[in-house]
Amino acid sequence: MNLLLLESSDFNSDGTAVITGRRCRQLVDVIRATAGKRCKAGILGGKCGTAEILNITPNECRVNFTPEKEPPAKHDIVLIAALPRPQSLCKVLHCATTMGVRKLCFIQTFKVEKSYWASPRLADNEIRDELILALEQCGDTILPEVSFFRTFKPFIEDELENLATGTRLLGDPAGTPAEFQEAATLAIGPEGGFTDYEKSMFYQHGFTPVSLGERILRTEFAVAGLLARLSLK
Amino acid sequence: MNLLLLESSDFNSDGTAVITGRRCRQLVDVIRATAGKRCKAGILGGKCGTAEILNITPNECRVNFTPEKEPPAKHDIVLIAALPRPQSLCKVLHCATTMGVRKLCFIQTFKVEKSYWASPRLADNEIRDELILALEQCGDTILPEVSFFRTFKPFIEDELENLATGTRLLGDPAGTPAEFQEAATLAIGPEGGFTDYEKSMFYQHGFTPVSLGERILRTEFAVAGLLARLSLK
Repeated sequence: MNLLLLESSDFNSDGTAVITGRRCRQLVDVIRATAGKRCKAGILGGKCGTAEILNITPNECRVNFTPEKEPPAKHDIVLIAALPRPQSLCKVLHCATTMGVRKLCFIQTFKVEKSYWASPRLADNEIRDELILALEQCGDTILPEVSFFRTFKPFIEDELENLATGTRLLGDPAGTPAEFQEAATLAIGPEGGFTDYEKSMFYQHGFTPVSLGERILRTEFAVAGLLARLSLK
Repeated sequence: MNLLLLESSDFNSDGTAVITGRRCRQLVDVIRATAGKRCKAGILGGKCGTAEILNITPNECRVNFTPEKEPPAKHDIVLIAALPRPQSLCKVLHCATTMGVRKLCFIQTFKVEKSYWASPRLADNEIRDELILALEQCGDTILPEVSFFRTFKPFIEDELENLATGTRLLGDPAGTPAEFQEAATLAIGPEGGFTDYEKSMFYQHGFTPVSLGERILRTEFAVAGLLARLSLK
């Protein structure tokens, strides 16, 4: 936790915030917070600043928050990923959020196992918890938008044009080297890749293949590497 | 498994290779291999090529391997990472290997918990297993060199000059944007970062801080992102 993320529900009428549960335990165990100490903090959906610990026990911590600046700007990147297996989904959510992606779309493709859609990890509260942890890691306060599209064709025909921004790129080891883009929509295939039909649909919608080299990477590392390239500035 | 990795011990005197255990199960379960099918394969430490399945049961598979080409070139990058917690070590090993790092060095720093050095994950055979999985993922056959240095000062004073190659870079959210390097040595701190003393030692040895932006990333995603930037070509 590099940033203590406060929610409006944490605040009392006197303007102080009271934290319990995981965040309190992390303040005690990891940051070794004591009364009078300060730590980086932010308001979910709002500004970053400093929290002063007023008092702390293993179960409850009261802080005074001073807002100071805007959170780090998001990159104007939309990530479209074939729904990965549940453990990998968490990593992709974490990676994309910490790297400042504005919008994430998970889609069905031919090689996505149907069972992935039944995972409890897709529940709204599970997704939100993962995003919160990622914001705390990277020092951001703004949740990215996350959407799920359970059928490929309606997504590509009806939704994509509304979602896409900037240069349209399809991750592919055989593509040209990925480079900086002011704004981009990046599509990442499942294990086993997009089918030729799926690729052709992306190409019809203006996507071009980009690569990090001929090596085939796990989804989360392909996402991390491609995002690092696209956001170079 | 995107490449079936064969070892010299798999080969019989008739030139065919016999595979059992995990690799055989993956051929059966994931690749759905049957007699006559072909898959990408390689010899550990040698060439990439094609394996033709001669016969296969759930427990044993016999293949005929034809070497065709050199494995993908490694990047001339040496990665120096503060020893991460054991689960993260596996991810860093996997990420750096799949992204083609030539040499990995894990070091002690002030903020590395001593208990990490006692993890069974550091055993030679555990490290080798992780590297093999990574080679199978990315389609490479050459193991990177992996070394461990349990004390910081002897490492930085006595070992670093022999290990380092190319531009010397220290990952730091406050650094300048990481960009392509023909050859590079990249140092990555622990959770909580290098101490000022440790940074000053790296600076004395010619390192400069490089960044992916102000966001603080998990070690494995910082590694993935920085490697993607350094290897852009």
